[in-house]
Amino acid sequence: MNLKKVMLVALLLSIVTLPAFSEEGMIPLSELDKLDLKSKGLKINPEELYNPNGISLVNGIINLSGCTASFVSGEGLILTNYHCAFRAVQGATTRDKDYMKEGFSAVDRKQELRAKGYTVRVIESYEDVSSKVLKVVKKGMSFEQRTKAVKKQIKKIILKVEKKNPGKRADIAEMFIGKTYVLFIYKYIRDVRLVYSPPRSVGEYGGEEDNWMWPRHTGDFAFLRAYVASDGSFAEYSPENVPYIPSKYLKINPEGVNEEDFVFILGYPGRTYRHRTSSFIAYEENIRMPYTVQLYGKMISMLEKLSLTNRETAIKLSPFIKGLWNTKKNYMGKLKGLRSLKIADTRKALENKLQDFIDSNPELKKKYGDVLKELNVLYRDMEKSFNYEYFLRYLRRNSRLLQNAYTIYEASIERKKKDPDREKAYMDRNFERTKLRLFIGLRNYVETADKVLLKDFLKKLETFKSGKREKINVVFKDPGNKKSGVNDFVDTIYKRSDLSKKEYVEKLFKMSRKELEVLDDPFIRMAKQLYPYFRELKKIDDERKGKLDTLLARLIEVKKMFMGKDFIPDANGTFRLTYGFVRGYSPADGTYSKPFTTLSGIIEKNQNKDPFHVPSKLIDLYTRKQYGNYKHSSLNDVPVGMLYNLDTTGGNSGSPVLDANGKLIGLNFDRVYEATINDYEWDEKYSRSIGVDIRFILWFVENYGEADHLIKEMMN
Amino acid sequence: MNLKKVMLVALLLSIVTLPAFSEEGMIPLSELDKLDLKSKGLKINPEELYNPNGISLVNGIINLSGCTASFVSGEGLILTNYHCAFRAVQGATTRDKDYMKEGFSAVDRKQELRAKGYTVRVIESYEDVSSKVLKVVKKGMSFEQRTKAVKKQIKKIILKVEKKNPGKRADIAEMFIGKTYVLFIYKYIRDVRLVYSPPRSVGEYGGEEDNWMWPRHTGDFAFLRAYVASDGSFAEYSPENVPYIPSKYLKINPEGVNEEDFVFILGYPGRTYRHRTSSFIAYEENIRMPYTVQLYGKMISMLEKLSLTNRETAIKLSPFIKGLWNTKKNYMGKLKGLRSLKIADTRKALENKLQDFIDSNPELKKKYGDVLKELNVLYRDMEKSFNYEYFLRYLRRNSRLLQNAYTIYEASIERKKKDPDREKAYMDRNFERTKLRLFIGLRNYVETADKVLLKDFLKKLETFKSGKREKINVVFKDPGNKKSGVNDFVDTIYKRSDLSKKEYVEKLFKMSRKELEVLDDPFIRMAKQLYPYFRELKKIDDERKGKLDTLLARLIEVKKMFMGKDFIPDANGTFRLTYGFVRGYSPADGTYSKPFTTLSGIIEKNQNKDPFHVPSKLIDLYTRKQYGNYKHSSLNDVPVGMLYNLDTTGGNSGSPVLDANGKLIGLNFDRVYEATINDYEWDEKYSRSIGVDIRFILWFVENYGEADHLIKEMMN
Repeated sequence: MNLKKVMLVALLLSIVTLPAFSEEGMIPLSELDKLDLKSKGLKINPEELYNPNGISLVNGIINLSGCTASFVSGEGLILTNYHCAFRAVQGATTRDKDYMKEGFSAVDRKQELRAKGYTVRVIESYEDVSSKVLKVVKKGMSFEQRTKAVKKQIKKIILKVEKKNPGKRADIAEMFIGKTYVLFIYKYIRDVRLVYSPPRSVGEYGGEEDNWMWPRHTGDFAFLRAYVASDGSFAEYSPENVPYIPSKYLKINPEGVNEEDFVFILGYPGRTYRHRTSSFIAYEENIRMPYTVQLYGKMISMLEKLSLTNRETAIKLSPFIKGLWNTKKNYMGKLKGLRSLKIADTRKALENKLQDFIDSNPELKKKYGDVLKELNVLYRDMEKSFNYEYFLRYLRRNSRLLQNAYTIYEASIERKKKDPDREKAYMDRNFERTKLRLFIGLRNYVETADKVLLKDFLKKLETFKSGKREKINVVFKDPGNKKSGVNDFVDTIYKRSDLSKKEYVEKLFKMSRKELEVLDDPFIRMAKQLYPYFRELKKIDDERKGKLDTLLARLIEVKKMFMGKDFIPDANGTFRLTYGFVRGYSPADGTYSKPFTTLSGIIEKNQNKDPFHVPSKLIDLYTRKQYGNYKHSSLNDVPVGMLYNLDTTGGNSGSPVLDANGKLIGLNFDRVYEATINDYEWDEKYSRSIGVDIRFILWFVENYGEADHLIKEMMN
Repeated sequence: MNLKKVMLVALLLSIVTLPAFSEEGMIPLSELDKLDLKSKGLKINPEELYNPNGISLVNGIINLSGCTASFVSGEGLILTNYHCAFRAVQGATTRDKDYMKEGFSAVDRKQELRAKGYTVRVIESYEDVSSKVLKVVKKGMSFEQRTKAVKKQIKKIILKVEKKNPGKRADIAEMFIGKTYVLFIYKYIRDVRLVYSPPRSVGEYGGEEDNWMWPRHTGDFAFLRAYVASDGSFAEYSPENVPYIPSKYLKINPEGVNEEDFVFILGYPGRTYRHRTSSFIAYEENIRMPYTVQLYGKMISMLEKLSLTNRETAIKLSPFIKGLWNTKKNYMGKLKGLRSLKIADTRKALENKLQDFIDSNPELKKKYGDVLKELNVLYRDMEKSFNYEYFLRYLRRNSRLLQNAYTIYEASIERKKKDPDREKAYMDRNFERTKLRLFIGLRNYVETADKVLLKDFLKKLETFKSGKREKINVVFKDPGNKKSGVNDFVDTIYKRSDLSKKEYVEKLFKMSRKELEVLDDPFIRMAKQLYPYFRELKKIDDERKGKLDTLLARLIEVKKMFMGKDFIPDANGTFRLTYGFVRGYSPADGTYSKPFTTLSGIIEKNQNKDPFHVPSKLIDLYTRKQYGNYKHSSLNDVPVGMLYNLDTTGGNSGSPVLDANGKLIGLNFDRVYEATINDYEWDEKYSRSIGVDIRFILWFVENYGEADHLIKEMMN
């Protein structure tokens, strides 16, 4: 076969093997003009949706500390998920005012509460900088050198851009791994305040039981507001700041949508892995995810046990436990999907065809012949050192005091370097925020939990001391008692350190490496002992990334030839559009998930206890059935949850769901269990995302919250 | 208010409070002529369905050892559920031939295998004998005396009838408790043989996980055949017997039915409690069911632990564990329903209205004023002694050797009495079967399991020795070692008894009470020690039944006045009809259960391990997609499970589902989880029963079983 023939066959193959539905894809800004959304159902001019030379809907969508959100009024009012605003609600809660339990409603601007640590990013521009980034890659570089050079170059570009654009934030995103890089410039708002939140029992209704599930009845929404200095500059929090006036805000359609209506989502999806190889899938399916499910399960049971004894402990640990559960259940869903859909096998079969295609042409064979094999070697190698590396990463993460000590110790080293040479967290542009995050983290510090987890990890450490492949030679000993075991050691060091106290941590952040090393703090001592191991890990990661970058870049090149077409890059936390239809689905033979749930369904699930505890006021309102204009006519009820076949992932939380006219009709917050596998493979059959219907939000705010002023502000 | 006005109000109330759907009701034969089934959708003459003066469909329906079944050929071929035929499959299995695993198919009559212990009952006639039964009730009798007198009278009538009708079987059923009694005369076939069974992996597909659930994909069907002596008499098994020629057999409609088609079921539903009071519901909801769920859970985990170690043990214990799971899950479903639907509250509210009705009329108040109160006292009293009584009942049941010993010991006492004075099991007409059941039971005897359960119960026994309310003074001691505890004692007695051996048991059955009492068998000794406690329990039961009978009889009387209409009696194991439609339902807001599942759904659930292990031959057949005439056109697949809003309960297992023309289109075998509550309250919203579609049965028998001769026999 000559190359032309091969290409033709490949093209035909691709028609068969690629999803037949056009709704797949988290489409980046640069590709939007290639879409024909009008033919799909969009009723506005595509330029109203996206216009690189003017103001469009895109300007109304923001990145809120990792979630998506949107401006919904001309005065900086922000609508996002309750779970995205939760840290703000928790942070505002005091002994006297339990905003988590009661919800929060600011009657006027003055009552709005500082949402510490929250930032808002609004896209200003983007630009392909692949050649600028990759020009530092030289022949003969080791993989580690390559990674370091690229990282440093990215930092340099960012610093240069931010210098030119004071107050703005720059970021370079890797679109196709090792291949294409896009520079984004963002407006960067640092004063964000809490405006309205439902009670946690509504905002988290169904808790872990309903998480990643349909039918869903969670009122997962909250309002915040962006503030800037009176001169319009993006200042840190100050009582004198004024509401930010966005160049664009989304209009609400209080009438919502119906089954089979066209809808789209704009937002910041986190990560997908659809371009990864079967060897990666196998690593995830057989090694990393099952291990994580097991580890998190163990951690959850340890933490839940502690939560039983004390209410305050329970409240402080709940976000941590919630996070563990969230990942655990997501992975369980993914594993179920990977196994039942045999995704690794299907991908392997496709790769075999790709390999045949490569091998059939000597030129291609020379250039790409080893790519799939090398990727396989890489993942098999990762499997071999998995236990040890995984353990090290978690050891640092899971004890907050050890983590604080390590950050302090690492800072004392990194901060001495030139800015672009530092690890990201210690660069000038990030360091204050790194410290702030650490202090916010202390809010939920629970000593008993920290100790339990550290003990568990230090016991595990022992198993690596005699390891054949990986060795760790650190011995953590109680200086006063040489015979003591892990339990005694941990009990002692928690007594001897003040690392949970803000003032002490601040003091330590000011110390030099030398000063820290002579300080008698047991956690700083541990950080020093572990430092070489973490440096070693960093080296391994850089090497691996260097290898992966070159291999994946080559893979994409040859895959494009094989498929005879361009692809959409995997999600990477950058701005994307996804579109489709409000639609139910059949999660299993003999069953059907309807596209809407209702207020009656909230009441139906009520158990008068967590996670199904409906506030009595809501029951009263339901009993009166005053639904006004928020009633869905054929359901004869207020719609609460909605399903649509859009392509979303984590990071899309809080994304506005927009109708054919570009009006906001819902708030994305989750996916169904079958769609957790989305991150590896999208399919119209099972890929459904979940939103809160705008009709529920408005009905709730108006009737339960009695916050008519908010409705007025949005409808203005 | 005068009585007339009160009645009118009551009538209006009843319209509101009674289910608005006419599909409720397990209608007894005596009420069938009052139905207008033609208007519901029946297309045949109702006389073809039921005709007391001639042959009708009713004559084709049989009671198969507690299940329902039907004749499906002129040569005694019987169609019923796999789970109803399971004991026959297990009994036929040998070391060489694992019919459980492989399934069974008799190529000709000679290969059909004896289904030991199975009997067939075919209704011949029925007659109201209430006055004959109740005439022995005299004023001044104690409640215990009343119960004994009624029981004895029932036995006398039965014996008299059976004497007049040799070879037939008579039974008297209590229709309204304490009030109406109906005598049934049955043909009684005692030679039943196994003809065809799918592999267990098909017949029990989904196992406990899918039990009481939809979507369902269980191929829960099997074929047997009834045999009689060549002179037509109902003889015990003999190789010379010939197939029974039924007066009626059901015709098959291989085309099945569609959504919303009219269907009906004839069969033998076990027990419902819709006429019971809120005080009974409260007892069930708060005491008996939660306790049973907990106890069975504990037993299951003990037995499953034993099953892990040994395959043979696992096979033997599996029917026992399955039974425990079946009840446990049913009760969990019931408890969920009772709690969420607040059935006790609703019923209590209705009773309050009834009490108002009674109290508003001095005559009624005098006659019925105390009924509800007394019933409440009765159940509260049962609650108080619940733990002790429950324990005693299970102590006897859960060790097979103790149970055998007790049966032998009790027989030696009862068999000395006159026939109608004996406990039922020891009457001449039942005794051989009592012994046979005991011997069949030994088939699944596992000593380790017996010991574990007995130890657990004897430990519990200790707690009753110091009980305030209930005392038990039996001390079980190891005669050789006075200091030994329960564990040693149990270990010793299992070593010292041969009660698991058929010959030994047979020998003991021939002994007198005296001979048994001097015999050195530790279990017989235990039986003797426990005998007074079980007699005491029997006395309590009789007293309670006497009280309940009179109270419930009075309740029904006054309820009829209150409601101004007659009711259908609760299910009681007698023949009933129920009708309705093939219909999906919404088990929860946002979800819908479709009325059919498919062959593709079987494959979708396959996990290549129990309980979802699809035989490879079935996968091959599916892949070839040769569905022939058995394909449902709009599903484009072979239908497997079906849902309908008919009113069924346990005992309806194996019932034929019939179409508007009275042809068999499915086989009933379960209910959905929400409908476990059916036994207390039926509702069109959630009451759905589950059947196997005839199209799957025929497709499977033809393609997997390659048993065309069976298809031919049915279609003849």
